[in-house]
Amino acid sequence: MAEQEKNRISVEIYGNTYKMVGTESSVHMRLVASLVDDKMREISAHNPSLDTSKLAVLTAVNSVHDYLLLKEQYEKLEIQLKHLKG
Amino acid sequence: MAEQEKNRISVEIYGNTYKMVGTESSVHMRLVASLVDDKMREISAHNPSLDTSKLAVLTAVNSVHDYLLLKEQYEKLEIQLKHLKG
Repeated sequence: MAEQEKNRISVEIYGNTYKMVGTESSVHMRLVASLVDDKMREISAHNPSLDTSKLAVLTAVNSVHDYLLLKEQYEKLEIQLKHLKG
Repeated sequence: MAEQEKNRISVEIYGNTYKMVGTESSVHMRLVASLVDDKMREISAHNPSLDTSKLAVLTAVNSVHDYLLLKEQYEKLEIQLKHLKG
């Protein structure tokens, strides 16, 4: 596989700066960072006593949960599609 | 909406114990916790100098990234399905 060009950007998430490196566009990387920032602020608003570390872990838990739900829906669509294609 | 019964469990993620509360089964919640734990350990193995908080933020970033990629694929399937259904 040819080596893809990597984008390197700095993003701010919950008051800290992170360097992100990836083959995705910087627009995509900024979107990801801003979604994580939003989720952290949302969880923090409901649990003001959490420290940043626990808050970040719960944000990761939340994201993986969303991912698994979407994966279930995705697999259902795949089955439907398979039936329709015969 | 009728109130759903909530499950309350304790899980261990990266050496810390978290109380999880949710309408999902405890099996699902344990799966989510173990996926987050795995991801944190994987990222940590590549970046041993990261503190837990940054590690957890990067884990969340990683999960949201996976979510967005899957969402794109999901939307493509939806379009295919729509065409097939006419």
